[in-house]
Amino acid sequence: MRVRGSVKIGGLQFGGGAPVRVESMLKSRLEDTESCLAELEGLMAAGCELVRVAFPSADLYESLRTLVSRTEIPIMADIHFSHTLALAAMSGGCGSIRINPGNMSGREGLMSVIDAAKSDGVVIRIGANGGSLSAKQIAAAGGDRAAALVMAVEEQLTPLMESDFDDIIISAKSTSVSDTLLANTILSSRYTYPIHIGITEAGPGLEGAVKSAAGLGILLAQGIGDTMRVSLTGDSRTEVEVAYMIQRALGLRKRWLNLISCPGCGRRRVDVVSLANMTKEIIAGLEAVGKKLPEGFDVAVMGCEVNGPREAAAADIGVAGTQGGYVLFKHGSVIATGETSNLKTMLESCLSEFTVKK
Amino acid sequence: MRVRGSVKIGGLQFGGGAPVRVESMLKSRLEDTESCLAELEGLMAAGCELVRVAFPSADLYESLRTLVSRTEIPIMADIHFSHTLALAAMSGGCGSIRINPGNMSGREGLMSVIDAAKSDGVVIRIGANGGSLSAKQIAAAGGDRAAALVMAVEEQLTPLMESDFDDIIISAKSTSVSDTLLANTILSSRYTYPIHIGITEAGPGLEGAVKSAAGLGILLAQGIGDTMRVSLTGDSRTEVEVAYMIQRALGLRKRWLNLISCPGCGRRRVDVVSLANMTKEIIAGLEAVGKKLPEGFDVAVMGCEVNGPREAAAADIGVAGTQGGYVLFKHGSVIATGETSNLKTMLESCLSEFTVKK
Repeated sequence: MRVRGSVKIGGLQFGGGAPVRVESMLKSRLEDTESCLAELEGLMAAGCELVRVAFPSADLYESLRTLVSRTEIPIMADIHFSHTLALAAMSGGCGSIRINPGNMSGREGLMSVIDAAKSDGVVIRIGANGGSLSAKQIAAAGGDRAAALVMAVEEQLTPLMESDFDDIIISAKSTSVSDTLLANTILSSRYTYPIHIGITEAGPGLEGAVKSAAGLGILLAQGIGDTMRVSLTGDSRTEVEVAYMIQRALGLRKRWLNLISCPGCGRRRVDVVSLANMTKEIIAGLEAVGKKLPEGFDVAVMGCEVNGPREAAAADIGVAGTQGGYVLFKHGSVIATGETSNLKTMLESCLSEFTVKK
Repeated sequence: MRVRGSVKIGGLQFGGGAPVRVESMLKSRLEDTESCLAELEGLMAAGCELVRVAFPSADLYESLRTLVSRTEIPIMADIHFSHTLALAAMSGGCGSIRINPGNMSGREGLMSVIDAAKSDGVVIRIGANGGSLSAKQIAAAGGDRAAALVMAVEEQLTPLMESDFDDIIISAKSTSVSDTLLANTILSSRYTYPIHIGITEAGPGLEGAVKSAAGLGILLAQGIGDTMRVSLTGDSRTEVEVAYMIQRALGLRKRWLNLISCPGCGRRRVDVVSLANMTKEIIAGLEAVGKKLPEGFDVAVMGCEVNGPREAAAADIGVAGTQGGYVLFKHGSVIATGETSNLKTMLESCLSEFTVKK
């Protein structure tokens, strides 16, 4: 197998041996900034690492810029039919864009997008969906839809490669699991660009999750896929949760920081996102002095002490808010309680005990 | 790949190129005959093709015999620690038993079971679960749990092979997807016996379904697995539904007869199981005169006309009960209505129109 290349979006590595990243796409409309931010917070708490956002109109430039400036999750703007939108997304701070190079207002438009992406360090995702293959593309592939997907990806890839642009993620998705498998197997053998995998329109609820798990599980078991999206009708957080379930089933990835937040619950005693950020900082601080938590170590950050320890019983260490303080628990059993003022010191000392030499 | 052998249970072929069969296991206790029969009816309506029933005590012989005589689904009695229970299950009419040859009351007990299975044409399923591996078995495999699973299966297989007993289904299951994959890959390359696949204790709800889909999807994509069980906490019908979702995702198998019954619904106008049986008889009758429905043709049998056509909109042809009669529908649109007295003639004529030459 060829060694896979990598790209970075917002400092996060995709491909090249990095964990298979977990993506979702905003279901809130970009004009509704508050809903978007709430959805982003929920996605981040669920462990989402890249969020695609449809950017259909230049009117929404300020909304996009606000999102990018107010969230820590890398954003990928999804753009069609306009190189000016692509340029706007990049100047608005998006670290990645998803475009079809064939509809960037002609060769000149595309070149301006590639130049801006080069100078801003922006990653371009390209790719084809089974649903948008043209009759001409299918005919050119002799009616073989998997081959047509590969051809469609290569049509998009060629102008980028000819411009010596390398920061690319490619994808070939279909509602057909077998077409998706075949197209990705071919693409993976021909190119080293990181591959985004997904089954489009997997359907509602259980059936969609099962279809994605079967299809993406087979790809991941073959080492294909550097970033994944589980497309589901319904809550975008569920997409992220199912993606982790698939990875966990295959032993690929446990959630590193197992955040269970409860945004709608009156018992919530603590700002879970702040607590999670503090926990991340502590872990980063430990890493800076050569200590790290063992592979697969689970840290849970919970909203309250009532359900926290039980719901996160699988976590190696968990922290939950209380009235004016916190509890620390280990595999569901409380091991310490304290006041907010000494939480950071206590958590740091507790996590430090579990670290191994880097 | 070696050609896989086949066995028959209750006339139904397992392995040897037959569709991957869908199994479940009764959650009702054997002593509660009515609950068992209701559960069996639900499982049959969902498309279940083999039901395993724990048979832990000779006291339950009459209950087991009643079930076998009152259901059309093949039954597999699950027996431990007693050759007399195995003999009782066979004399009670079970077409298959699941035993561990190592705990059939010694060599003589096992031989009596094998002899009875030979003369009654009973299929024996053997197999190992990750959870029941002994420390000795794991140590003998150098700590490799997948290798230990294979060794455990082979320990059980040897006495059957030495007795020239061939009607065997083998299985190696684990909560670990990777152990399950590796053990089954080895078993599949060494033996041609049909293989039962499953992930044990896959967990509750969505996570269990996703884990099973990922693990079993990979096996099925490699052509491994002749009969499958999705183990889930909760309703056994969901196990069957998820098994079909996995097969449908991989393009292996559409439900041939898409039975959607609604046992708890007051709108139910018709005995769905009788209607399904009538439909099966009609199709069998058409086949007897050289006609068959096209591959993947879906026939839905629904409890009532209120939800039936909409819920079974994906079916090529559906039939639903009404007050004193029926409706026939095609892709969700009603194409005919009539009275119960002429239902059989009408359905036969309707289905016949879709048949192709066998």
